[in-house]
Amino acid sequence: MAGLDPENWESLRALGHRMLDEMLDNVQGIASGPVWQPMPDPVRHEFRQAALPAQETALETLYEQFSRSVLPYATGNRHPRFMGWVHGGGTAEGMLAELLAAGLNANLGGRDHAPIEVERMVIRWAAAMLGFPETATGVLVTGSSMANFIALLTASRAVEGGVQLRRDGVAGRRLTGYAANTAHGCISRAFDMAGLGTEALRLVPVDADFRMDMQALRAMVAADRAAGLEPFLVVGTAGTVDTGSIDPLEALADFAEAESLWFHVDGAFGAMARLSPDYAPALAGMERASSIAFDFHKWAQAPYDAGCVLVREPGLQAAAFAQSLAYLSREDRGVAAGAPWFCDFGPDLSRGFRALKVWFTLAAFGTERLGGVVSQCCAVAQHLAMRVQATPSLELLAPVALNIVCFRVRTAEGDEDALNSELVKDLHESGIAVPSLTRINGKRAIRAAIINHRTVTGDVDLMLEALLDLAEKRVGHKLERVAA
Amino acid sequence: MAGLDPENWESLRALGHRMLDEMLDNVQGIASGPVWQPMPDPVRHEFRQAALPAQETALETLYEQFSRSVLPYATGNRHPRFMGWVHGGGTAEGMLAELLAAGLNANLGGRDHAPIEVERMVIRWAAAMLGFPETATGVLVTGSSMANFIALLTASRAVEGGVQLRRDGVAGRRLTGYAANTAHGCISRAFDMAGLGTEALRLVPVDADFRMDMQALRAMVAADRAAGLEPFLVVGTAGTVDTGSIDPLEALADFAEAESLWFHVDGAFGAMARLSPDYAPALAGMERASSIAFDFHKWAQAPYDAGCVLVREPGLQAAAFAQSLAYLSREDRGVAAGAPWFCDFGPDLSRGFRALKVWFTLAAFGTERLGGVVSQCCAVAQHLAMRVQATPSLELLAPVALNIVCFRVRTAEGDEDALNSELVKDLHESGIAVPSLTRINGKRAIRAAIINHRTVTGDVDLMLEALLDLAEKRVGHKLERVAA
Ligand SMILES: Cc1ncc(COP(=O)(O)O)c(C=O)c1O
Ligand SMILES: Cc1ncc(COP(=O)(O)O)c(C=O)c1O
Repeated sequence: MAGLDPENWESLRALGHRMLDEMLDNVQGIASGPVWQPMPDPVRHEFRQAALPAQETALETLYEQFSRSVLPYATGNRHPRFMGWVHGGGTAEGMLAELLAAGLNANLGGRDHAPIEVERMVIRWAAAMLGFPETATGVLVTGSSMANFIALLTASRAVEGGVQLRRDGVAGRRLTGYAANTAHGCISRAFDMAGLGTEALRLVPVDADFRMDMQALRAMVAADRAAGLEPFLVVGTAGTVDTGSIDPLEALADFAEAESLWFHVDGAFGAMARLSPDYAPALAGMERASSIAFDFHKWAQAPYDAGCVLVREPGLQAAAFAQSLAYLSREDRGVAAGAPWFCDFGPDLSRGFRALKVWFTLAAFGTERLGGVVSQCCAVAQHLAMRVQATPSLELLAPVALNIVCFRVRTAEGDEDALNSELVKDLHESGIAVPSLTRINGKRAIRAAIINHRTVTGDVDLMLEALLDLAEKRVGHKLERVAA
Repeated sequence: MAGLDPENWESLRALGHRMLDEMLDNVQGIASGPVWQPMPDPVRHEFRQAALPAQETALETLYEQFSRSVLPYATGNRHPRFMGWVHGGGTAEGMLAELLAAGLNANLGGRDHAPIEVERMVIRWAAAMLGFPETATGVLVTGSSMANFIALLTASRAVEGGVQLRRDGVAGRRLTGYAANTAHGCISRAFDMAGLGTEALRLVPVDADFRMDMQALRAMVAADRAAGLEPFLVVGTAGTVDTGSIDPLEALADFAEAESLWFHVDGAFGAMARLSPDYAPALAGMERASSIAFDFHKWAQAPYDAGCVLVREPGLQAAAFAQSLAYLSREDRGVAAGAPWFCDFGPDLSRGFRALKVWFTLAAFGTERLGGVVSQCCAVAQHLAMRVQATPSLELLAPVALNIVCFRVRTAEGDEDALNSELVKDLHESGIAVPSLTRINGKRAIRAAIINHRTVTGDVDLMLEALLDLAEKRVGHKLERVAA
């Protein structure tokens, strides 16, 4: 049998239409089911015991297994009461874009074709969105972890003589970077992967609002310079993962300029807040960054995965990543024309057509409506914070700068850390809501990250009520509540 | 307006069905159009001039633009006469899997949900497919570039005291790796990104068949040890990108064992040849590797992107990548259970549901049919090589170990390098076939990589005829041909 095209296109087509219908039904009705439910053991074992198949399986059989054993036991992030982690909710438009992208099956590593122009367009749009110049370079990647890593490599190759590090390794230099101790762990992992080591990233203390302490930063940079180290990079976070705090970006931009440091902003979810007139001012200074990392799969609701890195200065990204390979020679015409290619801007050669879902997302909704989602999520977070503060048995653990609320249930008796941990897991298992757990100033905190475009105030109300009900069950008596 | 769900689900649904139908039509009829055609300037400018949209655009309008300006000007890799680079052709099943994945919108960074079990299953299947133990760890990534990078980091953290490098950086050690000079450029880029520097990767000469010269390798490792360097890694390639040659994997496994080196195999496309009874023997030794990088988007025809890395020894991948972050605490029940998570095995935290298309691809077709695609592609390559050798005006430039044929048009007059370059571009512009260009022993070569499941011998015959026609036009006289 030649090739893998179906023998019977019509039955495949019919099945495809069924999949599309049922998936749309599923998205449309997402709020009516549980947010999450534990996978029953038999379902887990179905996957754990399946052997590599030598023979064909009817697509219908696979789809039936998907519907029965995957669909009901997913993460839950499409549901309005998922507030566990900064996961986007997805959209029907994003789903259709992925259908088209997979049908087209383009490889965006390079070459001269329309999908490449689409990615160039969305990179230009991303620059416009975040206040970067039109000449900025960038590339779509899996997520902000990769985007931050690319920015770090670009920054380290942009120091005087830095391009030589590509050949000689980093051993000869003592490159040192700075980020608040609230920065996401992927910044530290980027230092690890780049061979600089996590110790080469200094973690700067934060103030009471969980924003980088500029005085401390100044002192650390000065001390490191005096010790013969080579400060080269300062990372500000626009929306820290635990509390949503925003580092003093304007002050960081000034400091980086004065000290000739690369100023990178990790705006994984928070960068999108620039589209909300209410929150854009809080991000002032971000547009002065040397580079920005952020995601479309978070607050922009594009389907997973879709991260992005932007670099202000043209040429620097290619200086850090471009190579010359015989079989990837760049030609003046034909398929191999159109340099520079996206494989010159990051670690990936083969790359999917993420740009299509980003295009469809930005264009179908427009920046105003996407900014509206940000405003709405932040309003829901403010509502939740208010309710927490108005409830004597709850305690707010951090100021709410954007869309993340950290709080906990208070109780006179017993271990509050353990109680709150168990309560969050009880909530998960109830299917009513999915917040997450973190630590704030050493205390176990319930963390609600409002980022799903479907979440409204009623959802956090429901979450709170369920939480207090569960808490009462655990402590064995009524807790003080205030009527909503 | 709350959220991004459509006001009118029914019209979105109808449009979705239209997209699905038209995309299936397009895939079904792919062979009838040109492989590739240059994008007209107005189309290019449409994308180059579009401004970031503030307002909504009807999805129908976007789809219309996609159909008119993207679809006809794609890379061409779905077409049976695309033989430019080792790009898979895609399948209708893969496309439908992506539809479902995007509708589900799961984040595979971690947590306890069914998509994670699907990825665990396909990683286990990948291990079985390549002869790795069931206990091997692995993760799906964008492509082999990333997979090779992950393998390199894992290997460097697995040396004695290597885990300390994560904290302290690589400066204190002189880690040195080895690969044939035919290895893909991403191996060298991995050394660059890891901070070791490309000079820390020794490029070993190859024999007349473009396979690593084991004598030379032995001498280089011995010399480096004598010089106080620390050899830690040897990379063998199963299917080099320029000619498809296969390094002596069994000898490399023996050598690595004797020298206590990490043996990594880059099997980006070639690893899949293990599914073909005809070609599996040529890969003997691969199953002894410490790690393997390969792609499902190449010979396995899964839609872009889908790479994979496997690491034999459990624990090592997590030792190289796992971190502990407060908000990612691993719980005993609830959504945050189910550790280890895939974010512990590579650089990505947020990760799409690549596993679904890989599952559907492996299960729908089965390993026998996928192995049949490998055999078929190699048979087509052998046919092409035979035709080249039987044609006096053509010259075969490298032995054909798998699916790649490097050859060129010979001419008494003029610059053969320039002629062959122009001919390949002429071919691209003709729309008839898309081979690529590379250099073999300094000579400009036409490179036909047969990897699309739709390609049959008639396709390479057509390519050759078109090539000779174009060559005759350029040289101005008839060339010697032999009837097929
Ligand atoms: C501030 C911040 N930076 C980086 C990341 C990592 O992003 P990704 O999961 O897309 O890799 C996150 C993830 O939540 C984040 O919140
Ligand atoms: C042998 C080899 N290694 C690595 C790669 C890079 O793989 P990817 O394009 O999936 O990153 C390729 C790509 O063609 C390859 O042929």
